[in-house]
This record gives sequence, C-alpha cells and structure tokens, in this order.
Amino acid sequence: MAAAAEPVFWLGKETLRVSAALFAENRRRLAEGLKANGDLQPRSLVLLQGGEQKQRYCTDTELVFRQESYFHWTFGVSEADCLGAIDVDTGRSILFVPKLPDSYATWMGEIHPREHFKQKYAVDEVQYTCDIVDVLSTYQSALLLTLRGQNTDSGSICREASFEGISGFQVNNTLLHPVIVECRLLKTDMELEVLRYTNRISSDAHKMLMKHVKPGMKEYEMESLFQHYCYTKGGMRHTSYTCICGTGNNSSVLHYGHAGAPNDKSIEDGDMCLFDMGGEYYCYSSDITCSFPANGKFTADQRAIYEAVLKSSRAVMAAIKPGVKWTEMHRLADQVHLEELVKIGILKGSVADMMKVHMGSVFMPHGLGHLLGIDVHDVGGYPEGVERTDEPGLKSLRMGRLVRERMVLTVEPGIYFINHLLDQALANSAQSCFIDNQVLARFRGFGGVRIEDDIAVTASGVELLTCVPRTVEEIEEFMSDPAVKAFSPVVCSQSL
Amino acid sequence: MAAAAEPVFWLGKETLRVSAALFAENRRRLAEGLKANGDLQPRSLVLLQGGEQKQRYCTDTELVFRQESYFHWTFGVSEADCLGAIDVDTGRSILFVPKLPDSYATWMGEIHPREHFKQKYAVDEVQYTCDIVDVLSTYQSALLLTLRGQNTDSGSICREASFEGISGFQVNNTLLHPVIVECRLLKTDMELEVLRYTNRISSDAHKMLMKHVKPGMKEYEMESLFQHYCYTKGGMRHTSYTCICGTGNNSSVLHYGHAGAPNDKSIEDGDMCLFDMGGEYYCYSSDITCSFPANGKFTADQRAIYEAVLKSSRAVMAAIKPGVKWTEMHRLADQVHLEELVKIGILKGSVADMMKVHMGSVFMPHGLGHLLGIDVHDVGGYPEGVERTDEPGLKSLRMGRLVRERMVLTVEPGIYFINHLLDQALANSAQSCFIDNQVLARFRGFGGVRIEDDIAVTASGVELLTCVPRTVEEIEEFMSDPAVKAFSPVVCSQSL
Repeated sequence: MAAAAEPVFWLGKETLRVSAALFAENRRRLAEGLKANGDLQPRSLVLLQGGEQKQRYCTDTELVFRQESYFHWTFGVSEADCLGAIDVDTGRSILFVPKLPDSYATWMGEIHPREHFKQKYAVDEVQYTCDIVDVLSTYQSALLLTLRGQNTDSGSICREASFEGISGFQVNNTLLHPVIVECRLLKTDMELEVLRYTNRISSDAHKMLMKHVKPGMKEYEMESLFQHYCYTKGGMRHTSYTCICGTGNNSSVLHYGHAGAPNDKSIEDGDMCLFDMGGEYYCYSSDITCSFPANGKFTADQRAIYEAVLKSSRAVMAAIKPGVKWTEMHRLADQVHLEELVKIGILKGSVADMMKVHMGSVFMPHGLGHLLGIDVHDVGGYPEGVERTDEPGLKSLRMGRLVRERMVLTVEPGIYFINHLLDQALANSAQSCFIDNQVLARFRGFGGVRIEDDIAVTASGVELLTCVPRTVEEIEEFMSDPAVKAFSPVVCSQSL
Repeated sequence: MAAAAEPVFWLGKETLRVSAALFAENRRRLAEGLKANGDLQPRSLVLLQGGEQKQRYCTDTELVFRQESYFHWTFGVSEADCLGAIDVDTGRSILFVPKLPDSYATWMGEIHPREHFKQKYAVDEVQYTCDIVDVLSTYQSALLLTLRGQNTDSGSICREASFEGISGFQVNNTLLHPVIVECRLLKTDMELEVLRYTNRISSDAHKMLMKHVKPGMKEYEMESLFQHYCYTKGGMRHTSYTCICGTGNNSSVLHYGHAGAPNDKSIEDGDMCLFDMGGEYYCYSSDITCSFPANGKFTADQRAIYEAVLKSSRAVMAAIKPGVKWTEMHRLADQVHLEELVKIGILKGSVADMMKVHMGSVFMPHGLGHLLGIDVHDVGGYPEGVERTDEPGLKSLRMGRLVRERMVLTVEPGIYFINHLLDQALANSAQSCFIDNQVLARFRGFGGVRIEDDIAVTASGVELLTCVPRTVEEIEEFMSDPAVKAFSPVVCSQSL
C-alpha cells in the first residue's frame, strides 16, 4: 500500500491540487527568516489571527468568507475565526479552531474533531481557541510575535492577533511584519504552480469573452460570464478584485466597475473593450487585462494605440530581469508610449524633453505594474528604506524596489484618453507645447487600451504566466475564427 | 413632447425598470408614520447613513458594495458613503454625497455634479457630506431622528448615523426605528412589483439548474450557473444570501454552502438535491428552494418525503390570510409532516401526542418561513410586545406576529434526517417511543427536502411569487422533457 496521501486542497474535476506542503514550506521560511534576526529571543511564538465571518451590516446575512491573506499564506486554512501559532525554534505549528456549539451540527453541518483539521491542514497540533491561554502557557513562550504593519497600497494597518488573556504574555508586534512581508515577496515553486493555474483559468475565461462579446450586450454580462467560467471550470468562488468591464469611453476609467459605475453600459459597435479581470483560486490571485474592439475588427486608430501599448509591453518584458529597477521599467513604458504617440501624430517634439515634464503620465497615470500573490496588490512594494517618488505617474507605482527572481508582477502598460487629464495638460504650457490638439481631438471618447500580463521573474528574465491572443492579428483571427466559434453559445442566450 | 421621463433604475435589456417614485412613496409613508407619533416635535429631521465602501482586511481590494438596507429602502441610492435626511413636516428629502477629489476622475470615472444625483434619485436637494453641519443648521431642525435598534434575527444593533459636529444637534435615536421597521414590514405595490421580478428571474434560474444538473458535476457548478443566470439575464450582481447547493446528505445541512462546507461535493446518482438560492435586484431579495433528485427520477422514499413536504407547503398556503397567527402556520406544517411520517412508517402513534413533545422539530428544526424584502430575513418579525417562544422549532421562527396583508413571506417547510437530532430524539424516551428505528435507519444519509416559495399576503389569501415545477410529476416531466432540453448547453462544458 502506498503511504497515506498528503493532504491537498482540491475542488475536483480539472481544478488544481494544492498540497498542504506549500504552507509548511512558507512556515519554514518564515521561522528561518525570523531566526536570522539577531534580536529574536529564544522560545518565541508567531501568533497570527485569521479572518472573521462577517455579516451584511446589522443583518444575519453572512458575507462569503475569504481568508485574511497573511493567515492564508501561513496556514492555508479556509475556515473563519481561527488563530495559528508557530514555535520559531522548532517550527512546530499549532492551529486554533473555534469550539462549535451543538446547534452548529443542525445549521452548518458536521462538527469535526480537532484531528480532522490536523489531517486537513497538516499542522502539528490543533487546539480550541477557547483554550489558547492554557495552550500558549504550556509552551512557556518567552515572546509572542504578532503582526502589525502598514499595507503600502491601502495605507491601512493590519489587525494584530488578540485574545482574552493576551495581556499575560510578553508581546512584540514589530519584528514579524517586515520578515513575513519579505517571505511573501518571493514565491516558492509551489506558489508559482498555483499562480500559473490562476492565470491559465483566467486567460481561458478572457478568451471565452472575446468569442462571446458583441455589440448590444451589457458590460455586466461579460463580468457574469467571466465569473461563471472561472468558478465552474476553475473552482474560483472569488475574483481577485471587482471586474472592470469598460467599453467605449469607459475603457479610460482605470478602476471602472465599482458601485458608482457598475459595468452597466450597453456595448456598442465601434467600442473598444477593456476587460480587466482575474480569478482567485485558494486565495491566490490573477490580474489580466485584454483590450480589443467589441466588433472584432480594429479601426486604424484603435490599431495604432493598441500597437503602441503592445510595443511598450514587449519592450518592458524583454528588459525585466533580476537587478533591474522597477521604476526604470515604468519609464521605459512611458518612453515607448511617447515615441509611438509622436508617430501617430498626437504628440510632436523631443521625447526626451517630454519625459522631463512627465508627459507619459498624461496617458498612463497609473503605475506600470505591481506585485501579485495572495493579494492582487501583493505586499512588499515599499519596505522600510525604499521611498516612493512623488513624480506624476511614478508616484502611483506600487513597487519601488529592484526586481528579484521569484517576484511575480503584473506588466500592464496602457494609453488612455482621459478628458480631465488631457485638459490639465493642455492648460499647462510646459506640456501643451507637445500636443497636436487637432489630432488629439479625434481620440476624445476613444477610451483606453491596457495590456496586462502576469509574469514570474526568473534567473535571467521572465516567465509569462498569462496566455491570451495579444497581437492585433491574433486577436482579429481569434475573434473571427469560426472553428473556435463552435463553442457552446452563452448559456443564458435563451429565455426560459 | 412628453414630459421628462421619471427617473428609473434600469439595467437594460429585459431587466426591470424601478421608478424612483418607489422610494418617494417609502419616504412619504415614513414621514406619515412618524407624524402619527404624538411624541414627535415639529421640525424633526430623519437622518440615515448609507453603507460605506469597505476593503478586504487591510488591503486596498474593494469589496463589491451593497447598500445598507434601511438607507436603500428610503433613498434607493446605489453609491457608497452617502447620508440622507427627510424633513418630517414637509417631506422634503436631502441627499448628502461625498465631495470627490480630482483623482477620482482619473481612477473611478466622471465626477458628477450634485444636480446629477438630484435627477437620478428624484430627491429635493443634494448637498455634500462635508457641508452637512451647515446644511442641517439652516433647517433649524429641532431634532435629528437617527436609527438605533436591534435586528431580531442577528441580535446586532444597527449603526446610527453620525458626522463630525452632530454633538451640536439634539438627537433622538429611539423614535425612528420602530416606525421605519413597521413601514418596511408592509410592501407597497411598487415594492411588490420588484419582488415579483426577483422571484421570476430566480425561479427561471432554478429551472435552468434542473435542466442542467447531472451526476458527476460539482455542487459549486450549480451555484456558479445560478449566479450567472441571475446576473446576465436579470441584472443581479448579488445574491440575497450565500447559495446553498446541498446534495446527498448535505441536503440536510440547513445553511450548507458556507466557507466550512463550500458546495464542494460531487453530485452523485441517487442524490437528492436541495438548492436554496435567490437573486437580488436593486437590493430586493428572493429566497427559493427546490428539492429534486439529481438524476431526475424520484425513488419511492424520495417521493414519499417530498410529497409529505409538499402537502404541508400547500396546506399552509391554503390557510394563510390576514389575521392568522404565523406560529400556528408553523404548527400546521409540523402536524402535516408528522401525519405523513406516520404513513411512511418512520413514526407511529398519536400525532397529537407527538406535537406535545415537539416531534416536528426533530425533522424541521428551523422556522416555517420569514419576512422577505430588502433583507432576505426582513425586519419586523418581533416588534416590542411580541415575544419569541422557547419551544423547539418554533424558537427558530423569525416572525412571531399575526399575518397581515402586504407582508411578503417565505413558506419553506422541510423534512430532514439530521443524525445529530435523530440521535437526540432516540435518546429521549418521550420522543423515541414514537419512532420506528428500523424504518428510520433506511433514511439515514437521505439528506432532506425543503420546498420554499415566496408569497405576498393579499386581502383574502396569498399571491404565489415563485414559479417552479413543484409536484413530483411536474419535476420529473420538466427534467426529462427533451423539448426543454433544447436549451443551449452549459457555456463551460467545453474546454478552450
């Protein structure tokens, strides 16, 4: 007989099996990172608190639970209301789960014994959260290391683990955060495997949309279809972020799709589509943008802008390797955009001079790309000592450091025609001198183009995780190829 | 020329147009209800606070916003971070919207002037939230009525409106809650129209599942397909609650589908399916359960249990009319279940005696049904003076009052074989004497059957809002009818 199978997270069918060893390895790296810190006392215990089940406002309608990211990275636990500890010296892991009331068995399902969770998550020990004081006391822990630190994208401070009785322990809340952030920054082989999977499924979902989109549909139908594909084929109950399905001028709204602009426009013939969506599997993200004409055929202007962005995307990818400055990659994208906008005739003059007045940020006000992992904007972009620049465009870059092997990043250059920014530039003589306003006028209302791929940095370059048609020719062929049209039609195209 | 069209919420295509007049009528009823209260001072202003945009934990990943229910009922506003006021004397409505920073125009879309919201939501006045102190001061309001009260399903207290400077106003937080709850209790014609729509779309989505389910699929594929249908055909971005897709023994888990039991079982031949799902349109809910065999053909035991539940469902619906006690409807369902379980042979003896020892709750531990509206468990079930009984089963009933015209309720009897409850009953001599354990043993692992319809109470009876196949014959015919099979196959049945 073979040995007992290693515990895996698996949602059946063609979905990915993720071994619990992924999290054991994360814990091992974390303990190692902490031990490398000379300040650490012996008998220290990492203590992390998982996410809590929340309700809609004051009602009893439960929100679909999604685990807190640091806790997921460390323990891979799907259930709410847990805590977890790691003995730094020995690496021993202890998971704390809630002791459930009898009524749980009626309403929520079988009450599993602690052994069930020990097997499921391959931890060394499982205890009840109500016993945490006693359990931690037996460890005679000299120090509890809790997590407190700022998320450099949101500015928010993460919530520190806490429990009744914690005041009886010595707690340090500064040592853990920088170490765990650095661990999350570089992805292990097992993590890369999951990110390849989230990219494959999300890429396929984007391809599905390219086959199904047509003028007359609503933008939210694309959101719905994307989510359905990712969930039903990929086991992705969550997306990594709110789906952005901008068409026509909405494709210039960088974070379109929120409640104030909820993907509710009708898609029209001649519209550019900018679909920025990514599915999430077992809390690992993807983040992909495809831009293409709704009717499957680029106009000359659409082709020109699209190819300008594709050129910068490919220039950046060719340049990325360990040691490169990410800010330089952003500048490279800007430069290619400006060169191409000169060729198109929207801009005129010296690109070097344009760079000095930050013309790039008029057309690409966001950053070139960001770290990707369990969070779509993954942590670690600005560790202590790395300052964010205040330059237009670059100030929105979510990572300020050198590129390293095993980083996973998005590369997402874009060119947008945002009236508000164009008007500002035209009102600024340092910038307006480069603009041919007559040509520019033709592009008002065009929207925008973003091409976003996810990459893993290798020893010498990049591994492209995203796989969708990218050149104008690939897109037009893919969207028109009747063989691929043989797809089953959209499930809901007929009424009941 | 016709007069300017009344503002409506509409998501295009076949989705429902909901007039802003629905909320004007709600506000009018609220002001009237408050004026009927002798304690109210003149120059009182209702002040409600809408929901806030939230992020996932400490990240910048925004959760898809869903408006807070009281605020939605009163103003129908889709955007986050607003407040609203009503001058009780005059009925004048004032909406407060955030003053957005310039950067919003780049990242989130056009910054609309206040006039835009005045038109969109047909309120009398729109102001910026930052100006709230000045605006409310000009009203020389004698009293601000804020909302504070307990949700009787969750036990949580709703969050009172607040703003910097509120301490300069006289505030009363007790008058508003009971009045607005009573207003929400009874649905207007315009609200009923929306609830008919949410039921129609969700019914069609359930029918779609009945056509597509087959052994070998995963439960979550059903969740995904339901959500996709509701969104793409019905404009429903949210479901009213987490989808419950229990099959086999999971159909006995009342609130299956949560993170600890995430619809991840494979559907097997011979399984009963219990799919409890409802879509939500413009924050109005639906709540429908269909139970049927995965393979489309009831076994004798499945038919027996199903028909027992259907009998109680229909007995209850025939009995509901204004003035009836809801607790009596619950007892009626219990009684029919027990009579039928005697016929099946699982129980033996006098049903009247069984009722005395609450045998009904062994098989139906939940309440018969609940109010439905903007919340799936809508407010108003236990106003002051109506006490919740402590009897098994009935203690879980979410409404303790008399049935009234214009209530919308779920009728959702069920029979479940929950080992934990069966074992408790067998260990209790007052209950075990009624059980034929040999027959019962055959039903261990059966799961459960729930039949849940949404109804509106009319002057003399009920209007059935849900429309799905309900008898065994209807279900078997619907699931096997090849004409209806002509549906387009599931969109994702083929890989890319």
